[in-house]
Amino acid sequence: MASKASSSSSIPSTPLLKDELDIVIPTIRNLDFLEMWRPFFQPYHLIIVQDGDPSKTIKVPEGFDYELYNRNDINRILGPKASCISFKDSACRCFGYMVSKKKYIYTIDDDCFVAKDPSGKEINALQQHIKNLLSPSTPFFFNTLYDPYREGADFVRGYPFSLREGAKTAVSHGLWLNIPDYDAPTQLVKPRERNQRYVDAVLTIPKGSLFPMCGMNLAFDRELIGPAMYFGLMGDGQPIGRYDDMWAGWCVKVSLSNGLNAFLCSVFCEVICDHLGLGVKTGLPYIWHSKASNPFVNLKKEYNGIFWQEDIIPFFQSATLSKECSTVQKCYFELSKQVKEKLGKIDPYFNKLADAMVTWIEAWDQLNPSGTLANGSTKGK
Amino acid sequence: MASKASSSSSIPSTPLLKDELDIVIPTIRNLDFLEMWRPFFQPYHLIIVQDGDPSKTIKVPEGFDYELYNRNDINRILGPKASCISFKDSACRCFGYMVSKKKYIYTIDDDCFVAKDPSGKEINALQQHIKNLLSPSTPFFFNTLYDPYREGADFVRGYPFSLREGAKTAVSHGLWLNIPDYDAPTQLVKPRERNQRYVDAVLTIPKGSLFPMCGMNLAFDRELIGPAMYFGLMGDGQPIGRYDDMWAGWCVKVSLSNGLNAFLCSVFCEVICDHLGLGVKTGLPYIWHSKASNPFVNLKKEYNGIFWQEDIIPFFQSATLSKECSTVQKCYFELSKQVKEKLGKIDPYFNKLADAMVTWIEAWDQLNPSGTLANGSTKGK
Repeated sequence: MASKASSSSSIPSTPLLKDELDIVIPTIRNLDFLEMWRPFFQPYHLIIVQDGDPSKTIKVPEGFDYELYNRNDINRILGPKASCISFKDSACRCFGYMVSKKKYIYTIDDDCFVAKDPSGKEINALQQHIKNLLSPSTPFFFNTLYDPYREGADFVRGYPFSLREGAKTAVSHGLWLNIPDYDAPTQLVKPRERNQRYVDAVLTIPKGSLFPMCGMNLAFDRELIGPAMYFGLMGDGQPIGRYDDMWAGWCVKVSLSNGLNAFLCSVFCEVICDHLGLGVKTGLPYIWHSKASNPFVNLKKEYNGIFWQEDIIPFFQSATLSKECSTVQKCYFELSKQVKEKLGKIDPYFNKLADAMVTWIEAWDQLNPSGTLANGSTKGK
Repeated sequence: MASKASSSSSIPSTPLLKDELDIVIPTIRNLDFLEMWRPFFQPYHLIIVQDGDPSKTIKVPEGFDYELYNRNDINRILGPKASCISFKDSACRCFGYMVSKKKYIYTIDDDCFVAKDPSGKEINALQQHIKNLLSPSTPFFFNTLYDPYREGADFVRGYPFSLREGAKTAVSHGLWLNIPDYDAPTQLVKPRERNQRYVDAVLTIPKGSLFPMCGMNLAFDRELIGPAMYFGLMGDGQPIGRYDDMWAGWCVKVSLSNGLNAFLCSVFCEVICDHLGLGVKTGLPYIWHSKASNPFVNLKKEYNGIFWQEDIIPFFQSATLSKECSTVQKCYFELSKQVKEKLGKIDPYFNKLADAMVTWIEAWDQLNPSGTLANGSTKGK
């Protein structure tokens, strides 16, 4: 379903959120893939995070408005705090979230192309993400006809009326046609499997449920949840890779829910009274994922994660954050303490990760002093 | 998308679960709608629950294998316990669940016809339900590519390996094209809305999340969850209608989860150790829902429910069942006590309902003595 972007692709006359959204792209190569995205991305500002050798020059197609950061830039800007940004791993993309001054972020991998819907129309993935982010989520009760805010759909019989205002949407998780986002063991077992099913739905992942968040095609409200979108320590010098986006997803989900304790406390109370509930949507839009990464290399990166994850998931499932955690930063600090306390026993790596989580927040606050648009605070939202 | 059943419709040579599944149909009219379903339903046994005037004769198209119960039959079979079966409301269908001796039930309304998929092929709804019931669910962690057991799909990167065996599927909830299952207020506001979106997905509703279960197109494992599939007291002499399937859905979901407490206890422990986790799937198959019921009549039936539901949902969200509840019957008994204690304050109706829940279980056990195939016990599953 991949295709060349053609001039016939419809470009909305005034692109939505043109001055409120940055596109963050981690890369080690020339960004020819942008040619195909030109009709959809050109009006927006790009933040390119160059991974690997900083002396290499990354070519960006003409006509795009961008800023580019390589490792030297990251070290210069963050000083010793640069240690929290991964090297030789696409986890480095989260540096882009930090230097952005916009309310929204869309991040995409450079091996992702424009997909087509079943009618053959090219999918403007960014536009769909924006739709997802600007309409509410329904994390407190499942709607069987999927996103009730979509045209032609609504809440079904039996959906409580008090919950129909929904919650603010913090994350929009898009999917992939062609190469599915499989782990190394599944890649090895099913080398030829391709995702050919276009599921025409967006749905909210219920509160209290964890999910595997993939960073390949992801948008989020930086103002609401940015400080929790830390992609961890992966790649060079670390005993793990390919769990960067997963880690961020679990931290975000726990921060959003403010712990299952609050959930149990009273679902309704949270919505109506303290406004802490935020939602995560998944489904549309699809991108065309062009090539599978090497499963042998992936297995090397993943194998520690495969073991550790069996403890990490129950940790996140049972994590509760205190009522005092009134900002994302405070949630994240508290979470880092629990990571050290509970996961530090598994491997010293988690002590290092917990420290990096603190460094990340310090760096975030340094680059995003309180009072700027994106102060990461959830107060007064 | 409704169409006449044609002889070209593919009939599987050996229908799946032919001797292990009953189709339960509540009705007040001649069952002409079965003509369209003939290629798919004829191999199966039907249990018809005739509502309303028992002296009326219901015509069933020739060639179907069925048993039919009217109100006189229900009264004769259950004696004083017949009070737990609703009259003049499709909630009476649950009598069919009770008299069945099969492992699986499919229930469908008589205004539901065969839908077509986007390629124009007639959908064998029953076959899809059977597929759903015979493959595991994933209630403990969300899979972003939907049902991982479906051909062409799998678990995505980051899905814990220990959870990939899944849980037994207890319920398969199908959807509706054409007339969506809206409540009276939504019907009144959107009289012309039709569901035209075919979403090609089956997904598991995560553990701990409630959903609005519709009885129009529903299949379940009677052996696993039958005794909790009570459709409550609705219709004649009751202050509420159109919450029968909702009530059953909430009770089932809580029974399946054995309370949120157990969920918090440890998700992993539940799967691996005590095997209490069961799953609910929703999505495919679609049926074609032919006509909307009268929204004014519906509003009269629903309005108490609309208020009460605001208390019922938090009640179910926070309901916990003790570890001693080792069978569905025991779960349901405990739930009935909590209904009386917590919801009895809202309206005396809930005291009556709680008593009826107990009567239902007594009647169930009377018709399904322990040791028969469908003893309703979850032991040794």
